[in-house]
Amino acid sequence: MLEKLKDRVYRQNILLVKHGLVVLTWGNVSAIDREHNLVVIKPSGVDYDAMTADDMVVVDLDGNVVQGEKRPSSDTPTHLYLYKTFADVGGIVHTHSTYATAWAQSGRSIPPYGTTHADFAFGDIPVTRSLTKAETEIDYESNTGKVIAEAFRDNDISRLPAVLVKNHGPFVWGDTPEKAVQNAVVLEEVAKIAALTEAIGGKGNRVDDALLKKHFDRKHGANAYYGQPQSCGIREN
Amino acid sequence: MLEKLKDRVYRQNILLVKHGLVVLTWGNVSAIDREHNLVVIKPSGVDYDAMTADDMVVVDLDGNVVQGEKRPSSDTPTHLYLYKTFADVGGIVHTHSTYATAWAQSGRSIPPYGTTHADFAFGDIPVTRSLTKAETEIDYESNTGKVIAEAFRDNDISRLPAVLVKNHGPFVWGDTPEKAVQNAVVLEEVAKIAALTEAIGGKGNRVDDALLKKHFDRKHGANAYYGQPQSCGIREN
Amino acid sequence: MLEKLKDRVYRQNILLVKHGLVVLTWGNVSAIDREHNLVVIKPSGVDYDAMTADDMVVVDLDGNVVQGEKRPSSDTPTHLYLYKTFADVGGIVHTHSTYATAWAQSGRSIPPYGTTHADFAFGDIPVTRSLTKAETEIDYESNTGKVIAEAFRDNDISRLPAVLVKNHGPFVWGDTPEKAVQNAVVLEEVAKIAALTEAIGGKGNRVDDALLKKHFDRKHGANAYYGQPQSCGIREN
Amino acid sequence: MLEKLKDRVYRQNILLVKHGLVVLTWGNVSAIDREHNLVVIKPSGVDYDAMTADDMVVVDLDGNVVQGEKRPSSDTPTHLYLYKTFADVGGIVHTHSTYATAWAQSGRSIPPYGTTHADFAFGDIPVTRSLTKAETEIDYESNTGKVIAEAFRDNDISRLPAVLVKNHGPFVWGDTPEKAVQNAVVLEEVAKIAALTEAIGGKGNRVDDALLKKHFDRKHGANAYYGQPQSCGIREN
Repeated sequence: MLEKLKDRVYRQNILLVKHGLVVLTWGNVSAIDREHNLVVIKPSGVDYDAMTADDMVVVDLDGNVVQGEKRPSSDTPTHLYLYKTFADVGGIVHTHSTYATAWAQSGRSIPPYGTTHADFAFGDIPVTRSLTKAETEIDYESNTGKVIAEAFRDNDISRLPAVLVKNHGPFVWGDTPEKAVQNAVVLEEVAKIAALTEAIGGKGNRVDDALLKKHFDRKHGANAYYGQPQSCGIREN
Repeated sequence: MLEKLKDRVYRQNILLVKHGLVVLTWGNVSAIDREHNLVVIKPSGVDYDAMTADDMVVVDLDGNVVQGEKRPSSDTPTHLYLYKTFADVGGIVHTHSTYATAWAQSGRSIPPYGTTHADFAFGDIPVTRSLTKAETEIDYESNTGKVIAEAFRDNDISRLPAVLVKNHGPFVWGDTPEKAVQNAVVLEEVAKIAALTEAIGGKGNRVDDALLKKHFDRKHGANAYYGQPQSCGIREN
Repeated sequence: MLEKLKDRVYRQNILLVKHGLVVLTWGNVSAIDREHNLVVIKPSGVDYDAMTADDMVVVDLDGNVVQGEKRPSSDTPTHLYLYKTFADVGGIVHTHSTYATAWAQSGRSIPPYGTTHADFAFGDIPVTRSLTKAETEIDYESNTGKVIAEAFRDNDISRLPAVLVKNHGPFVWGDTPEKAVQNAVVLEEVAKIAALTEAIGGKGNRVDDALLKKHFDRKHGANAYYGQPQSCGIREN
Repeated sequence: MLEKLKDRVYRQNILLVKHGLVVLTWGNVSAIDREHNLVVIKPSGVDYDAMTADDMVVVDLDGNVVQGEKRPSSDTPTHLYLYKTFADVGGIVHTHSTYATAWAQSGRSIPPYGTTHADFAFGDIPVTRSLTKAETEIDYESNTGKVIAEAFRDNDISRLPAVLVKNHGPFVWGDTPEKAVQNAVVLEEVAKIAALTEAIGGKGNRVDDALLKKHFDRKHGANAYYGQPQSCGIREN
């Protein structure tokens, strides 16, 4: 059951380690099978070294475990909220990667300071509002999904592949789990360069609108001309 | 004699190197056998590459060497002071890890800026007072234990697994040496993200009490729901 | 056709990864065969792990693909503009390396703060002006070459091996692709040390003219005395 | 001739790479045979990958090459000046390691902010004065030695194993080349932690005199009690 997707999700969880985005057992990757409305997600608190594809847990959109011996990630309700709200999201990543988390903790969205950012996201990476005391105490993980969704009322999730949950850390997505992990890698690098840009004195020196649009459109949408034509099967698996 | 515990302590000392927390021969891990009141600790100033489990030194709570050919770590009296003062501590780690040491040198406790911190510690990681001249000159290492203990008069050691000794560096603990090393890894990452948070402009942007409690309780205590049930034997060895 | 140069360009692209200058598929290296006026360049958006020397694309100075199955780097027109403008440039590198990009995003040239900089470049590493809206929308990549060339009206490209394109990142060159990649490595380190110098309080503490000249001349030009005599075949391949 | 010392010097040069203290061909280690007044030093500008122990160059104290096919390091006259001035120095290292160089470029000595520093050096790591124009233009490398020696008129070289040459970088020493490289590793870490200490707000928060002395004396001199007794042959080779 969903063996292939479980293997892909497993491999992407391992890639988080390889890319230096997680410490100990932190971080999780999931993917959705939209045909069957089933989500595959990493088990909670299992060592990456000991983890296998068989440890991935399959849950339905209500969070019931459909397959798997282990508890799913404690962040599962956040993932489910996002899959239910955003029909085009195919994979989700949550990490506490160093620089993205520092921005989240500072309560600031990440301004687009250059083309590295523009290649990836069409505007500021937004930060959510704080959860209320009640939202934190009851259904915390679902409510984390809710404040993320709120942050996208005025933003286009198809052009902004990441969000910073305030005082917490990033959630990142893509049309596949592979793309979501790539986006998590890029977010961390963009967050690092933005912090250094401000340290060097570039605060406020935003990329202008024309350059933002040029770089985003080079890589995304109908007129993209970065990379190889899709038939080469190289851009994404 | 205590062969199994010596092997565990040895392995955790080696993990300090793997996690990038020590330079040259710096750092040490110990563990206590509460049944026999014996402590196993790393020898002083021995290269990690040349070290074996047999080099671990066994001392009693008065610091007498009970087994081992080498001198124990020069910080042994600090470890002993903590084991005698805090009955629930099973393993202790001392490092000069980069960011935790920078906080210690700045004389500041680390504020809880987000859930990464809250998952690990229920409040500020405290910094000790300075030792007096007399405390430094006589029984320095025991007195280091004493000022740590003082810092916990108003703090709960079971909910704060680390301390910063002022102008020195961190001491970290856990119920086992494995957990103590995990906590040392997390402390360094938390210290780094907190420093970056302030650099980005988040100074004072503390996690609120409800979120601090929520995350701490997700991972600790009777109502924890992070990780797998203990019978799986995964959370800790 | 140009098999040897394709192999050299391929190897230097792989070296970018080894030196930590690129993330995912970012970055590109090219080289020119001045006898035939043909340029060898990395294909666009291909994984480094899957890339071979045969994937390198050969283009003429008008950007027509002369050999190769894949699309050339989307930055090819920038490379061509530079090869046509600067007759002594033999290899070009473009990266988004972390610190050099932070300087580019801050809109500042990198001041020469010490001999590490002086060994490499005779003065400030310049930053370009911004492209206009029109320059961004039409022929963006060629216009990127144009603003780089403008930045060298008052600068000597033979003594400054790199430029920062504002809100974008570095372009770096050399008489060979091997030297261009070495210069990209040095630029990133120089950019990092300069940022730290300012953080520590050294802003404005420029190397004086005599020391700048001394170190540059130790390594460059007729009176250089760093390294081994060329007949040893060691300094550059 | 001096085969054993050439092998030791070679190994320590390679260790600079392993410890991340050098980029490309930067950095050099030397050692002196005080019985024959001969110095073994790395050749200039040779790739570390291609270098062998036979490439080490033997020079006399006037800088004449006594053995070796390659040119010695261009910094050789600085090394010789120091060996002639300081009779107890047995090995010297020069690097452009990132944080130590940033302090040198900022023109500031490194204050002792904690025990990590005190374990290594008894006071501020001094920065030299600038060389004059004349000193830079003629006999530059010898004059670099001269300004280092000047910086130690008021300092004790046996208790301060490193210096920062202004707008340049660190020179580090020890009684053996192995100890000199260890000191270069520690200096870089101390320089990094000091920079972070100031970034966090600890500027001026110097370690007090009693703690500085306690930690220095734990590791150095007749009353040292860190490490194993010398007869174990572990502390230093």
